[in-house]
Amino acid sequence: MYFASDNWAGAHPEIARSLGEAAGGFAKAYGASDLDKKVEHTFSEIFERDVAVFFVGTGTAANSLALASYNRPGGQVFCHAEAHVNVDECNAPEFFATGAKLVSVAGQEARMAPEALAAAIARFPPDFVHGGQPMAVTLTQATEAGTVYGLDEIAAIGRIAHDAKLPLHMDGARFANALVTLDTTPAEMTWKRGVDILSFGGTKNGCWCAEALVLFDPGRAREMHYLRKRSAQLFSKSRFIAAQFDAYFRDGLWLELARSSNAMASRLADGFAAAKSARLAWPTGSNEVFAILKNATLQALRDEGAVFYDWPAPAGIRETMAADETMIRLVTSFATTGDDVDRFLSICTR
Amino acid sequence: MYFASDNWAGAHPEIARSLGEAAGGFAKAYGASDLDKKVEHTFSEIFERDVAVFFVGTGTAANSLALASYNRPGGQVFCHAEAHVNVDECNAPEFFATGAKLVSVAGQEARMAPEALAAAIARFPPDFVHGGQPMAVTLTQATEAGTVYGLDEIAAIGRIAHDAKLPLHMDGARFANALVTLDTTPAEMTWKRGVDILSFGGTKNGCWCAEALVLFDPGRAREMHYLRKRSAQLFSKSRFIAAQFDAYFRDGLWLELARSSNAMASRLADGFAAAKSARLAWPTGSNEVFAILKNATLQALRDEGAVFYDWPAPAGIRETMAADETMIRLVTSFATTGDDVDRFLSICTR
Amino acid sequence: MYFASDNWAGAHPEIARSLGEAAGGFAKAYGASDLDKKVEHTFSEIFERDVAVFFVGTGTAANSLALASYNRPGGQVFCHAEAHVNVDECNAPEFFATGAKLVSVAGQEARMAPEALAAAIARFPPDFVHGGQPMAVTLTQATEAGTVYGLDEIAAIGRIAHDAKLPLHMDGARFANALVTLDTTPAEMTWKRGVDILSFGGTKNGCWCAEALVLFDPGRAREMHYLRKRSAQLFSKSRFIAAQFDAYFRDGLWLELARSSNAMASRLADGFAAAKSARLAWPTGSNEVFAILKNATLQALRDEGAVFYDWPAPAGIRETMAADETMIRLVTSFATTGDDVDRFLSICTR
Amino acid sequence: MYFASDNWAGAHPEIARSLGEAAGGFAKAYGASDLDKKVEHTFSEIFERDVAVFFVGTGTAANSLALASYNRPGGQVFCHAEAHVNVDECNAPEFFATGAKLVSVAGQEARMAPEALAAAIARFPPDFVHGGQPMAVTLTQATEAGTVYGLDEIAAIGRIAHDAKLPLHMDGARFANALVTLDTTPAEMTWKRGVDILSFGGTKNGCWCAEALVLFDPGRAREMHYLRKRSAQLFSKSRFIAAQFDAYFRDGLWLELARSSNAMASRLADGFAAAKSARLAWPTGSNEVFAILKNATLQALRDEGAVFYDWPAPAGIRETMAADETMIRLVTSFATTGDDVDRFLSICTR
Repeated sequence: MYFASDNWAGAHPEIARSLGEAAGGFAKAYGASDLDKKVEHTFSEIFERDVAVFFVGTGTAANSLALASYNRPGGQVFCHAEAHVNVDECNAPEFFATGAKLVSVAGQEARMAPEALAAAIARFPPDFVHGGQPMAVTLTQATEAGTVYGLDEIAAIGRIAHDAKLPLHMDGARFANALVTLDTTPAEMTWKRGVDILSFGGTKNGCWCAEALVLFDPGRAREMHYLRKRSAQLFSKSRFIAAQFDAYFRDGLWLELARSSNAMASRLADGFAAAKSARLAWPTGSNEVFAILKNATLQALRDEGAVFYDWPAPAGIRETMAADETMIRLVTSFATTGDDVDRFLSICTR
Repeated sequence: MYFASDNWAGAHPEIARSLGEAAGGFAKAYGASDLDKKVEHTFSEIFERDVAVFFVGTGTAANSLALASYNRPGGQVFCHAEAHVNVDECNAPEFFATGAKLVSVAGQEARMAPEALAAAIARFPPDFVHGGQPMAVTLTQATEAGTVYGLDEIAAIGRIAHDAKLPLHMDGARFANALVTLDTTPAEMTWKRGVDILSFGGTKNGCWCAEALVLFDPGRAREMHYLRKRSAQLFSKSRFIAAQFDAYFRDGLWLELARSSNAMASRLADGFAAAKSARLAWPTGSNEVFAILKNATLQALRDEGAVFYDWPAPAGIRETMAADETMIRLVTSFATTGDDVDRFLSICTR
Repeated sequence: MYFASDNWAGAHPEIARSLGEAAGGFAKAYGASDLDKKVEHTFSEIFERDVAVFFVGTGTAANSLALASYNRPGGQVFCHAEAHVNVDECNAPEFFATGAKLVSVAGQEARMAPEALAAAIARFPPDFVHGGQPMAVTLTQATEAGTVYGLDEIAAIGRIAHDAKLPLHMDGARFANALVTLDTTPAEMTWKRGVDILSFGGTKNGCWCAEALVLFDPGRAREMHYLRKRSAQLFSKSRFIAAQFDAYFRDGLWLELARSSNAMASRLADGFAAAKSARLAWPTGSNEVFAILKNATLQALRDEGAVFYDWPAPAGIRETMAADETMIRLVTSFATTGDDVDRFLSICTR
Repeated sequence: MYFASDNWAGAHPEIARSLGEAAGGFAKAYGASDLDKKVEHTFSEIFERDVAVFFVGTGTAANSLALASYNRPGGQVFCHAEAHVNVDECNAPEFFATGAKLVSVAGQEARMAPEALAAAIARFPPDFVHGGQPMAVTLTQATEAGTVYGLDEIAAIGRIAHDAKLPLHMDGARFANALVTLDTTPAEMTWKRGVDILSFGGTKNGCWCAEALVLFDPGRAREMHYLRKRSAQLFSKSRFIAAQFDAYFRDGLWLELARSSNAMASRLADGFAAAKSARLAWPTGSNEVFAILKNATLQALRDEGAVFYDWPAPAGIRETMAADETMIRLVTSFATTGDDVDRFLSICTR
């Protein structure tokens, strides 16, 4: 019963197999191999337009390079306070963007509210040099609260960003999970709604280590080649990432894995609702479930081998909790089984 | 006949198999898994002392983080002009070490001469703030010229560095190749000769993507955790690197691969010598052969499918070359076969 | 009637005279002149202990170098949301400290509340690498709201910082103004209360350009020499700053100027209270007055030549304001005259 | 007899007087005062075109910001090995330009040879990401060897830079000295020969602290405002720099001072030649004289109170020196008197 994180799973068998098959033979290094090129082309097909693709090793790298590529002195990056870039990347975005500042934008359930974003940007009037200047907007899809921005919300944020001449970055570490929740296409969820640059994550959804930076404006690719290399993210045997993505995209595997992962999360959420054994802190929109349980139940779960993390309850939720309750986070993955979910639920309802 | 680089090979079958085996099951993320811990322990065994090990994704990352961990404002890093950190890392060391400067130290065959190093350091007297201050010494083993520092040379450089209170870093992207050439132990080639921190490369010698930073002073590990994370080099499914190293070290596979690779390079070098079809630019000490051939021969080789790079002939060698000659680099790897070498040589001697 | 900022004034005649006197003759450059050394010694006398002093050109430079000198990867700097470092330095602290993050700590009237500081630090548990690590605490004395930390408050913050093994920095751009308000000594307001490093400002209090970084631990001076030079803040004719400070400290001029400036601010505040023509937004503790006036009054003031800035009313104050009211900031300086204050007040009470 | 450096002098009386006059009254801060605007306009007049001007505190700041404003990841900056940016700025250019690398270009007497520059640039072919990419060319006028680039040389370097789509920066810490040597106009020595951005120094030629960054493309000014502020170089009482430049430019004072300074250097050089008491290491083109003297003479000079620095003799000159000879640098300034020069020479010829 492993619900600690989707990165506790290993690699999906198809992806492992693809890596094994690519191991033999010689191929051009540093992203120039046929397999690299093939997978880059697949990205363009999936996004229904010509995109520039850069493989990198971690989601933090993708996010940091995306922001760095729009770097401005005194740059202010607008994000939700709970965004991964803000709380879980050890200042990598600030470091890569040479001292950019992340400005917290308010909003429910880890989603920036469009009007709050507009107000936050407005606090940096043009030519008031002391406060710095707006530089970029970044949203996380799916969010760190397990929720998902609707297409209209993305479009609203995109319009505000572009009205202020700012690029919109999407941190898609759980891109596939959000995509299948919205039942839409990659193009609709990104550039058709104003996204300029995307961190596309494969690792949390069944790859070993496969992240890509997707530039919807390929004209910006030239500098990114140097940025990536200077950031030590250009892999010599780059096809080891390409091979993972090759299997990931084949026959829709990536969507299938995300659907399975999301379904396990819904099963957990539904189980809680049915059994009244737990309250949800936020609605479950992807593969993360945030719930409030009795401490005794949590102890029982852990005694039986369940693995998950406590989560600091934010203001607004904290006040609703009893002294013997704790908020937890449960993350499902492609490797989560219905049996594990059911066993977990059964302990909750004992 | 692929001699372009050792990173044109894929992964050795044993390493691919190890990755496949690790793909199943759940394990702690971010380097805390049992497999990560096991491999870290193996490093300590191999180096015959307690070391701190940090997996990273590229040799450039390892080198840059090693230097950044000894960062000082106005820092001067002493290296050979031909060092990888100086010419092939797109300023990553300078970027990670916030503007450090790489100072070229003279020496034959891409090896710093100890006396030249001492003289270079002496040009930065204490408390002359304008010129900056010495920060670190870094040597490449095996070098970019395919040569190898002898144990006494490493020790001499280590003494000079330590006399100046500077740390000594070794870029060991081809550590195994140098090790088997010297027929010594990892401990003898590193900390017993004054090396303080090591970039340990597995990628060029049969792994997909397996580099490690080895700190011989584990007391410095705390800051490195943050440095690595801030540099976007902390992998969530870190065991995908651990699994590669696990197979790499098992039953001495890593030494076997390096021996094979080196043997192929020697076979090339010996073949040239025997056939008089080429002159060596530098002695062949590892798995790189630098040779000067007739342009007509090179054309014939390429027509037959041989892949390799021209190499800019440095001063001292350039003058010895005829107008119809070109200097080339040939790199062998674990995957290079004797048949390919022999076929290459046979074309040369036609 | 210039109340826009204390930096709209020029230099006090004594300071201008000192500069003129120092203009002749030759002297060692880069801080080594007799005058530089004399003034450094004066600092040690004023602070009643051996301090290391570094002249720099701007308060932003002093603050940024102070923080940079305690730099750590993933570093979190705790400050009040309204601190100058946070809102008025265009990311210079983040840039000089290679991507440090400023964490807002709550508190009334631009002063961090000690308990809020402790809670903020506690959110970064040791060894949770993702969130980064605490690096420094910085307070502004006097604050950006014109208020002043009491000695006990500084001590409380110092204890919390030191308990967490963090240095305490004081941004003393208006050090003298706070000092005379508290009627205490430089030593009591700094190192005796736990301050480790101080940005000591002279510019806002009658100098042209005279800022100093004061290190209460002179053992940290060595690296600062390089940090300052690398940051382009080492002046060749450094004695032009020394000459200003020499006059500034002579016969207590600096305290006299601050007293005068504060007295003008009090006169404004008292005048408002007496005439009921304005409400104070915050108590007036130094040379800044934040007040809420009728828009009609503000128009009349401006028509008569008064110069001052509107100030964005923060939440908590905004709600108390009528539609026809605006919050403004009035800053007095050594050059402010009682006549100007009285004229300003008389317009208010028409 | 002070010949240590031109920054050992103080400020010219006219400049000191101008500062004194500006001390009274109130004026807009941060460069918006009438005096700031007036002096900016003077720059445009002097350069015969619309320029953007940014006052900064040090020559290192001007140089570093100039390069940073053209920053590119993996950027290579081409300069002479002896350039001030390369040897005397403690890595400030590398720091401000986030890890740019300075590439040494060969050339006699501290001047880059155009053909060597072209060859150096050619070593960075487009799209070879590992080596980084060319970013800027910078020349020092007058040079660190006291020589001066001819107008044709500047033009040749400008053409090479522009052919490679690189900006040309001029470090004009001793701009006036070079200008009067060439007997030309500021426009002819800069943008008419291809200079895109200029560090214009006043400090070494009679100011206290007055350096300006001059952008010949004012369209690039917007980002520079933020760059300067982020670098802590935006002075609040900016008119203290403006007041210096105001006097500096009035009635051609700046040229007069440079002529006087250069004349004193020529008098020294001529005196050496006449008396055969010293050999010149390089021709004297500005206000620096590099000479080789007998150690006994140097001792006598120092015994009589002469102040100057020994200079490390470079290869090519070192070999010509006898064991009892030393190379020295003598720098004259606006404050150097003919009496001091004559007294110095008389000691040499005893």
